[in-house]
Amino acid sequence: MKDCIFCKIASGEIPTEDFIYEDENFVAFLDIRPINSGHVLVIPREHYENLFTMPDELLSKYILLIKRLAPKIKEALNARWINLLVFGEEIKHVHIHIIPRFDNDGFEPPKQGEYKEGEMKEITEKIKSFLN
Amino acid sequence: MKDCIFCKIASGEIPTEDFIYEDENFVAFLDIRPINSGHVLVIPREHYENLFTMPDELLSKYILLIKRLAPKIKEALNARWINLLVFGEEIKHVHIHIIPRFDNDGFEPPKQGEYKEGEMKEITEKIKSFLN
Repeated sequence: MKDCIFCKIASGEIPTEDFIYEDENFVAFLDIRPINSGHVLVIPREHYENLFTMPDELLSKYILLIKRLAPKIKEALNARWINLLVFGEEIKHVHIHIIPRFDNDGFEPPKQGEYKEGEMKEITEKIKSFLN
Repeated sequence: MKDCIFCKIASGEIPTEDFIYEDENFVAFLDIRPINSGHVLVIPREHYENLFTMPDELLSKYILLIKRLAPKIKEALNARWINLLVFGEEIKHVHIHIIPRFDNDGFEPPKQGEYKEGEMKEITEKIKSFLN
């Protein structure tokens, strides 16, 4: 897609540091603004805005690739564990963030709130009604 | 698995607000400490510590279920977009967070850093060496 930075990275039009991994469907490379050192982005070569619009077969391949890459990244960087993040509001070409995590790495998970009485039931029912 | 809170929720041993969704392999329910209202957890009934130890077939089903649920949650709650998060250090039963996002919802993405000169190349090479 014209003017999509990730399409340009996948096609090689914008050079990035060497791909960590590439195959016919996906490429993986370091995020230049890492949450932690070794923070990898994995993207499909083809432009999809988000996971939810990807064809089932390609989406399955995507998660199986993440399953394959993440433990290797963990091992290579001697990370304690791995986080996966999918935001997708800023760059509208789906990308999964693989974040190596370390003890005391300063990563702050998003703040959690609370429900008022009855609110959980209400929201549960509302979502269920959209699933039926 | 004994003493796993998510195993107990999946089996019904610990009651939760009604499941939003359930099938033979997975259950979905509201996180009681939501990052945003309508924050859903999707877990496999069977105990796996993380995504990376799940069998391929089950993992594919998992991501296809997320693909199915997330847009419905977005629609039900009139969310602007959806984030997916996988942390997995605290509770060692794999769970995917589906977070409905809204304009000005106060969600703060993790802080991003920078690489020093040459560091990206070094880390890229290191990870590649573990992939080969």
